Amino acid sequence: MKEDKLKVKLKNNPYDIIISERERDFLLSFKHFARSKRVFIVTDKNVAKLHLKKFENMLREAGFICKSAVIEPGETGKNIKSLSYLYDKALDCGIDRKSCVVALGGGVVGDVAGFFAATYMRGIKLVQAPTTLLAMTDSSVGGKTAVNTSGGKNIAGVFYQPSLVWINASYLLTLPERHIRSGMAEVIKYALTFDKNFYDYLLNLFNKGYFSFKEFNRIIYKSCAYKASVVEKDEKETKGLREILNFGHTLAHALETYTDYKKFLHGEAVALGMLFAAKLSYELKLCKKDVYRDTLEIIRCGGFDFNAGTPNPEKLVSLMTKDKKSVDGKIRFVLLKDIGKPVGGIVVSGKEVSKLLKRQWILNS
Amino acid sequence: MKEDKLKVKLKNNPYDIIISERERDFLLSFKHFARSKRVFIVTDKNVAKLHLKKFENMLREAGFICKSAVIEPGETGKNIKSLSYLYDKALDCGIDRKSCVVALGGGVVGDVAGFFAATYMRGIKLVQAPTTLLAMTDSSVGGKTAVNTSGGKNIAGVFYQPSLVWINASYLLTLPERHIRSGMAEVIKYALTFDKNFYDYLLNLFNKGYFSFKEFNRIIYKSCAYKASVVEKDEKETKGLREILNFGHTLAHALETYTDYKKFLHGEAVALGMLFAAKLSYELKLCKKDVYRDTLEIIRCGGFDFNAGTPNPEKLVSLMTKDKKSVDGKIRFVLLKDIGKPVGGIVVSGKEVSKLLKRQWILNS
Repeated sequence: MKEDKLKVKLKNNPYDIIISERERDFLLSFKHFARSKRVFIVTDKNVAKLHLKKFENMLREAGFICKSAVIEPGETGKNIKSLSYLYDKALDCGIDRKSCVVALGGGVVGDVAGFFAATYMRGIKLVQAPTTLLAMTDSSVGGKTAVNTSGGKNIAGVFYQPSLVWINASYLLTLPERHIRSGMAEVIKYALTFDKNFYDYLLNLFNKGYFSFKEFNRIIYKSCAYKASVVEKDEKETKGLREILNFGHTLAHALETYTDYKKFLHGEAVALGMLFAAKLSYELKLCKKDVYRDTLEIIRCGGFDFNAGTPNPEKLVSLMTKDKKSVDGKIRFVLLKDIGKPVGGIVVSGKEVSKLLKRQWILNS
Repeated sequence: MKEDKLKVKLKNNPYDIIISERERDFLLSFKHFARSKRVFIVTDKNVAKLHLKKFENMLREAGFICKSAVIEPGETGKNIKSLSYLYDKALDCGIDRKSCVVALGGGVVGDVAGFFAATYMRGIKLVQAPTTLLAMTDSSVGGKTAVNTSGGKNIAGVFYQPSLVWINASYLLTLPERHIRSGMAEVIKYALTFDKNFYDYLLNLFNKGYFSFKEFNRIIYKSCAYKASVVEKDEKETKGLREILNFGHTLAHALETYTDYKKFLHGEAVALGMLFAAKLSYELKLCKKDVYRDTLEIIRCGGFDFNAGTPNPEKLVSLMTKDKKSVDGKIRFVLLKDIGKPVGGIVVSGKEVSKLLKRQWILNS
């Protein structure tokens, strides 16, 4: 089975995901839809050092005029200030409605560049070129874009589908191990919520202790395919299906905000969030204890640290009620009935969440 | 013919325009789609003084929980800072995904509140409640939202359709005459670009010198109907049809930016822009001289001042090439073949535009 190309079959804006290390595979598709020679590359300082020159050269050799903008790396760059910078820089560079934006970087770059592309002159074309495992397996696909505001994570954003996603796994060679692990959290999420077989496959890989290139590409392909299958059915999160993808994210967002995005990488917070969600599933008698144990096992084998410090449960609960998913002050969770069988829209009172957080922070199973 | 309700027949998001001074006509529709009791009213300082209390009371009496945010009036409030304020305020007020935003005010409030609603938690429902003639006849319908950036007007924005537009012409009673006149510029635009009969009707009214309530409502109805007819065919300005609505706006935007949004109200700049476009149409031999004369006459009868000061033509041209409509540094105009017969996408070189600006600034016909 060929696993180097996927189609996200959206009615109004279908697009391809190209999983290939070959530049020509990307350029072939890119040339197909670029309506002007002008390309605006958005990246961050870390990625710029490693990959920007090469990327620009590739596009210039193919006849494009490249302009680039470099934002601050990490969550500190994911804000309205970065957006303002991009609007001004793009206008100065002569980027117009027919130009194209390339998001070259991790999840933050993808989110900010995506929001920028969606709103610059009321929307210009966007290519996602993820450089982290997290972005390759999750954030580059599906059209979620956002920036943080002083009040919370992803408060300002829109759904805006890219016209193309190019996943070049060779970027992973320059990615620190901690970031690879962080990306694996989202891969584990797909295993836990979609497919027991993929769970077994992944657990085996973790136990083996290393991944070949082929295995990385397979993991990426499977992750994108799971994500695309949900996005196709519920592009804008209006039908409750897409919510499944937020498994582990209710607590994760609160943990990230609580620690001011400094302590955890996103995947690390998601790992803790999945563990909590699995425990909550068991406590609410939605699943057998095995499901919690299986969750614990794969997260442990994924190499995650369970020491989350000692966050204040009440404060976490208060943050969770301010989450976008929260409606009328109640906290919504995606929980598990079984491995591969998630159930969304479970509303739990702040009191109950707080109680469980106190009893089990974070690991005493 | 009933002229108190219009439907904007968009495939994915059709909505009603209610033209009525009766609160119950609005509330009936509003209750129909509001998914939560929480309503977030966005308005500006001027409108707040005049109308906010009454509007809040109406909603509270109907059982809604109202929170309000007040931005700076005029173009100075149409920026990213106002957006940041709205994100923070809304989050503090517990506004969630199912809440609804009401834009109570003129074009600026509608644009900022619209952009906010489109991007807060990736989009919540929006009601446009315009209080100026300009907003009633133009900006509240069609889904264009935007804020200015330091580089230019409306650089950041999205297309985001309201779920309902409520036009209550009694707000016009508190509107200064200069603002009524400014709004008439967009009405004149519809006459010039859509309908010779409407041109004659409007010219008669101008010559009569005053308007009854019924006549105001008729003008509003006609304007919204023309606008809706274009928006229905080209919601996101991708087919070149919607461009017609920008008649007069190429120069207008440059004039506004040039004078830092201080000298002209939007309609005043549009009036000058329409005059220039008509002159350009004649110079390019697209129309007979009569068309320019007719344009001049209705703008003169509309009470517009032709003294635009002495802006620097080269600077104006440079601003026009930075306009969103500009592609590859060329300036695009909507011109007239005849009254009611516009032609879009006319590309004119900066040199030619500059020449005509010099020869005729602004009135020597």
